[in-house]
Amino acid sequence: MEKQTHFQKELDGLKENLLRMAILVEEAIGNAVQSLVKRDSDLAKKTFEGEEQINEMEIDIDGKCLKLLALMQPMAADLRFITSAMKITTDLERMGDQAVNIAERAISLNQEPQLKPYIDIPRMAEITQSMVKDVLDAFVNGDSKLARSVCERDDIVDGLNDQVFRELLTFMMADPQTVTRAVHLMIVCRCLERIGDHATNIAEDVIFMLDARVIKHHADAKEESEREKIS
Amino acid sequence: MEKQTHFQKELDGLKENLLRMAILVEEAIGNAVQSLVKRDSDLAKKTFEGEEQINEMEIDIDGKCLKLLALMQPMAADLRFITSAMKITTDLERMGDQAVNIAERAISLNQEPQLKPYIDIPRMAEITQSMVKDVLDAFVNGDSKLARSVCERDDIVDGLNDQVFRELLTFMMADPQTVTRAVHLMIVCRCLERIGDHATNIAEDVIFMLDARVIKHHADAKEESEREKIS
Repeated sequence: MEKQTHFQKELDGLKENLLRMAILVEEAIGNAVQSLVKRDSDLAKKTFEGEEQINEMEIDIDGKCLKLLALMQPMAADLRFITSAMKITTDLERMGDQAVNIAERAISLNQEPQLKPYIDIPRMAEITQSMVKDVLDAFVNGDSKLARSVCERDDIVDGLNDQVFRELLTFMMADPQTVTRAVHLMIVCRCLERIGDHATNIAEDVIFMLDARVIKHHADAKEESEREKIS
Repeated sequence: MEKQTHFQKELDGLKENLLRMAILVEEAIGNAVQSLVKRDSDLAKKTFEGEEQINEMEIDIDGKCLKLLALMQPMAADLRFITSAMKITTDLERMGDQAVNIAERAISLNQEPQLKPYIDIPRMAEITQSMVKDVLDAFVNGDSKLARSVCERDDIVDGLNDQVFRELLTFMMADPQTVTRAVHLMIVCRCLERIGDHATNIAEDVIFMLDARVIKHHADAKEESEREKIS
């Protein structure tokens, strides 16, 4: 019984840590994109500091997970929760890396005249931030509906990315002077899109964990239903 | 004793599966880049098929890992090996996704006149393929020296990426007609660079696992000193 109580306490601590790590990632994305929008390179530097904390948390949380696996030898749902947590820290850490990429591009872009008003980029950032927050809430609280809504938001991010991408292509074709800045902005968008992908990867794992169903490679699932229709 | 023998057998099976998954990834990269170089869009389609197999293997291996954790309750080194394996399958699966991205770009590019001779791109592909192969060998055989050599090769990939990137920028500035093709090629390079990053992430985990030291975030230290140089 005591082992069980202790285990529950450790698990709660793990959940808290994961949520804190997600907040750091959210902040890093916010600082990176705001440094671009407000043309404030100091905010970009805050992203670098945030990323260091994120890296430390990954190592710390993974260590805690290993300890839990070794000492508590959890079964079934708990086991799956802990191994998923270890995959999630990797995704969160990679999101931090993407935020750093954005911040670096922002610093470069802030040194040049602004190419175009930034409207879609902060919108993309907002959505990806909400995806990071919600997917961790979904994981910790076992909320598969919330996880599904994260997957849906990824389509909006992808759509915005395509839209900005095409717009920037027209800039580049019309005026070679814009090429470097346009490429920087394309990379910013791609980083945001990748953050959305990471959140979606986590969401798919959460749904898999909860439903013990594989929607991960939903392409396969789609084929399956096609096959059912045929047979 | 019997449990131990059975466990060892399962572990050997796991290693074999991981190596097979790595070979599929290597092939997917090869097919994707060769479809570009040889302007053969059928090869691109082979990449899509390969990716499906890779996705299936991820789910299969992760399931085996969970079973091992639950039934065998491994300790220390074995525990760490199995949880690392679960992180590695994620990286391999994402590499497969990148190969698909390359194949998709190849199909588009193959419909247009070739912008430039492809020399650096197959070179990048070769190096990343060797990284995938070697990092899995390093993991399975516990070879930290080999893992370190994978990290070193990543610098070559990054260097080639920067080089092609700059070359393509000059194309775009000189002739707006080249913009779309140049952007496609930039994305191909970036995909290869990301595959290199995934291999490096695995390599760092291998080294961490073997040396129980964190070299993972050495990039930060390097960037930090770069930034200091600039400021």
